[in-house]
Amino acid sequence: MLSIDLNCDIGESFGAWKMGNDAELMRVVSSANIACGFHAGDATAIRKTIELALQNGVAVGAHPSYPDLQGFGRRPMTLAPGEIFDLVLYQIAAVEGICRAMGGKLHHVKPHGALYNQAAGDQTIAREVAEAVFALDSKLILYGLSGSLLLTEAADAGLRTASEVFADRSYQDDGSLTPRSHPEALIADTEKAIDQALEMAGEHRVTALSGKTIEIKPDTICIHGDGESAVQIARAIRDAIKRAGITIRAPGPD
Amino acid sequence: MLSIDLNCDIGESFGAWKMGNDAELMRVVSSANIACGFHAGDATAIRKTIELALQNGVAVGAHPSYPDLQGFGRRPMTLAPGEIFDLVLYQIAAVEGICRAMGGKLHHVKPHGALYNQAAGDQTIAREVAEAVFALDSKLILYGLSGSLLLTEAADAGLRTASEVFADRSYQDDGSLTPRSHPEALIADTEKAIDQALEMAGEHRVTALSGKTIEIKPDTICIHGDGESAVQIARAIRDAIKRAGITIRAPGPD
Amino acid sequence: MLSIDLNCDIGESFGAWKMGNDAELMRVVSSANIACGFHAGDATAIRKTIELALQNGVAVGAHPSYPDLQGFGRRPMTLAPGEIFDLVLYQIAAVEGICRAMGGKLHHVKPHGALYNQAAGDQTIAREVAEAVFALDSKLILYGLSGSLLLTEAADAGLRTASEVFADRSYQDDGSLTPRSHPEALIADTEKAIDQALEMAGEHRVTALSGKTIEIKPDTICIHGDGESAVQIARAIRDAIKRAGITIRAPGPD
Amino acid sequence: MLSIDLNCDIGESFGAWKMGNDAELMRVVSSANIACGFHAGDATAIRKTIELALQNGVAVGAHPSYPDLQGFGRRPMTLAPGEIFDLVLYQIAAVEGICRAMGGKLHHVKPHGALYNQAAGDQTIAREVAEAVFALDSKLILYGLSGSLLLTEAADAGLRTASEVFADRSYQDDGSLTPRSHPEALIADTEKAIDQALEMAGEHRVTALSGKTIEIKPDTICIHGDGESAVQIARAIRDAIKRAGITIRAPGPD
Repeated sequence: MLSIDLNCDIGESFGAWKMGNDAELMRVVSSANIACGFHAGDATAIRKTIELALQNGVAVGAHPSYPDLQGFGRRPMTLAPGEIFDLVLYQIAAVEGICRAMGGKLHHVKPHGALYNQAAGDQTIAREVAEAVFALDSKLILYGLSGSLLLTEAADAGLRTASEVFADRSYQDDGSLTPRSHPEALIADTEKAIDQALEMAGEHRVTALSGKTIEIKPDTICIHGDGESAVQIARAIRDAIKRAGITIRAPGPD
Repeated sequence: MLSIDLNCDIGESFGAWKMGNDAELMRVVSSANIACGFHAGDATAIRKTIELALQNGVAVGAHPSYPDLQGFGRRPMTLAPGEIFDLVLYQIAAVEGICRAMGGKLHHVKPHGALYNQAAGDQTIAREVAEAVFALDSKLILYGLSGSLLLTEAADAGLRTASEVFADRSYQDDGSLTPRSHPEALIADTEKAIDQALEMAGEHRVTALSGKTIEIKPDTICIHGDGESAVQIARAIRDAIKRAGITIRAPGPD
Repeated sequence: MLSIDLNCDIGESFGAWKMGNDAELMRVVSSANIACGFHAGDATAIRKTIELALQNGVAVGAHPSYPDLQGFGRRPMTLAPGEIFDLVLYQIAAVEGICRAMGGKLHHVKPHGALYNQAAGDQTIAREVAEAVFALDSKLILYGLSGSLLLTEAADAGLRTASEVFADRSYQDDGSLTPRSHPEALIADTEKAIDQALEMAGEHRVTALSGKTIEIKPDTICIHGDGESAVQIARAIRDAIKRAGITIRAPGPD
Repeated sequence: MLSIDLNCDIGESFGAWKMGNDAELMRVVSSANIACGFHAGDATAIRKTIELALQNGVAVGAHPSYPDLQGFGRRPMTLAPGEIFDLVLYQIAAVEGICRAMGGKLHHVKPHGALYNQAAGDQTIAREVAEAVFALDSKLILYGLSGSLLLTEAADAGLRTASEVFADRSYQDDGSLTPRSHPEALIADTEKAIDQALEMAGEHRVTALSGKTIEIKPDTICIHGDGESAVQIARAIRDAIKRAGITIRAPGPD
């Protein structure tokens, strides 16, 4: 029986600033990547977002980032060797402890923004991220870009992984994402995004930009939470997947 | 058989800035209060300081603070209800997780600076601190000022506590510290400080500024780590206590 | 001929987080208090907000705060003597220089949040704020709460001042604001707020909560920019004042 | 008659953390690059360091950086287009205003750390830095690495520039610095560093690592302030230059 996870970055408010519709999104997704305070979120936001996830039966994940509040963790940075291990460990430890204090259990880790992108292609960064997650709890699941070095390093470190795909990004023949600089990188048409989600979740393949069909085996689909119609699109994807008879659930122990 | 704990604030370097002689102090104290990144310390400093403590058999404590790096957590602040619970929980969770990842076990929590002082006299703040510690791990020991509201609230919350005294501060007849505004608040003479430490640890009493002898039952003596001769004074206090036949050890399960 | 200033806190977005409808508000007010990066705003937001003000012919003001991004500068803090002078000077200097670089001229300074409130009643804080403003440019106008110590200290320092009143806050017989803890502190009814604005701007008096009419001579009315209907209320106040034949303009050289 | 400037990064303390011996260094150098609060320094440190410079007749410069306190501005970062203009303008405006308030006049700008390095080789970054400086005050002098793109862009922007060389770094045949990865990148021998300083200041040439003599026309020599013997080495270089009959002074209007 087929199943897929829908994950969403969430808890991205900070202090007086609100971002995203967390309450609505929590009703749609099966796993939540909670900002840890380095690119978004603060101690109060983290605690509230975890409580919201637990109330909705959504798997709680930590979403660590470079220390870059003003740039929302999207700025590529070069850190000294070992620093990424330390800062990932700090952030996921904070979220893990708050989650435990609220009666929950941390389920996964997904790096954010520039750290996510750099961990996908840089082996040293990927390894530091994976080792930090393993050091905190070897049972945690590391979410990473489908086909990325992060997943390889995570597996090497002894972690379970979840291969992440995107409904609204086009793919290249080698299974990589079309770079954002390309005019057709983004799939703006919601119907097409739903079709792609269904193809990936139901048939384990995707039609690349070239028209070629390629194999892909996703564990989780990234749902975007920002933007006017984010919640609506998220619901549409979820409903289409459900109607196709595919179970939506967070990756779990086999 | 008499025993006493010697605790020290430590891990107070930040980024390129060094503070204190952590390696030397770790050879003197029995428990370490490690800055959590809000007033001092950063992810790398925390990890290194915990490793140092574990290597020296020193009990690892978290030293949470108001979010005030530039003011070193010494600025009194007024937070909204519940915020202190959240920010203490975040900080101690981070340090607890890093400690666990390094193979250790978090032993205690001691609030820092303005938070320590305000938690000593304000019941709401004291309760939020105590509840945050209890929420993370009900077995943690909460260090607080001898005779303070923090200890009362911690006990009410179901936590074990450690009553903290100072070798280099003079006391009033009611067991409270002489306010810093008083000319004789600080005991600058090292010999007198050693005598006071011995009297408190060995006889469970202290000679107040008035000359009156008062009873006090300390669990831990605060050792200062900053200043030119800090390590020397710390060693002198430790040696005098040892010579008096008093065991130096962190408070533990009875 | 009567005139009054309408001022608004603005430029309160930070990084990826948006706050307020700056473009709309700039069409309503005559002077803008621009967040300086300590409680809100960042270098890019400040530059853009200044450009927006200059395009709309709105007087540019700096809106310095305690260093408290997460608490939006609303947390009362206790700083060491002299620190407030330094941090106000830093913030207003940054905004002044950016304003000059954009071809404008800094017009005024209004402290934000907890700093505004504490400067209203604490002479030391009021003096440090006033001296920082004077030190940067003795021609700047300092905005402060009507009847507050900040205005007295500013005048003593040799600064021009603007006495600020609120359309949506009720007043006590002595001209002070009804404390927020009082159920009738806020005037929720827009019509009543407009009436109060008109009474203050046009007749230089206000009806206190007791019903007594008291004299008040406002230079500027604070317009709120946050909240769903903020812009609408702001426009209603502006239109009523204009219809009453009162000129809306920033305080200027006599 | 020959002259040269000796410049030093200074004012790098932050909050409770001290760095460098500012008082001693101010007696040695002719121009000071003052940290602006983004990688080091805070409002109080900046004000005090400016006062110290003015007391010693040292030219006051601003030393802007990437926003990276924990990494001391040494982490390469990738910012969005325009952001470097904004953050440089913010920082130098703050220092300029504080300097003016203290009765001085801002003399120059030198980017710090990763920003200095990236501005040396990346035209877009170099241009944004130069345009920010020009926007604040077209009379400011921009210090940059000898032979770098930053100096070209600064000149194109209409700024005066100062070409910076290093006494303790070896040079390549093309006038560039030997990369730090090379074993002979640094000149550890103080006597050799003094000789190099003299050769550069007095004869406008330097002996490259290959032994080849190359022409170089420095306006300013960078003096390091950190490290045990920093002040001693700084004094030795200054004394040798003075004995050679070369005037030490900040670059000024012709």
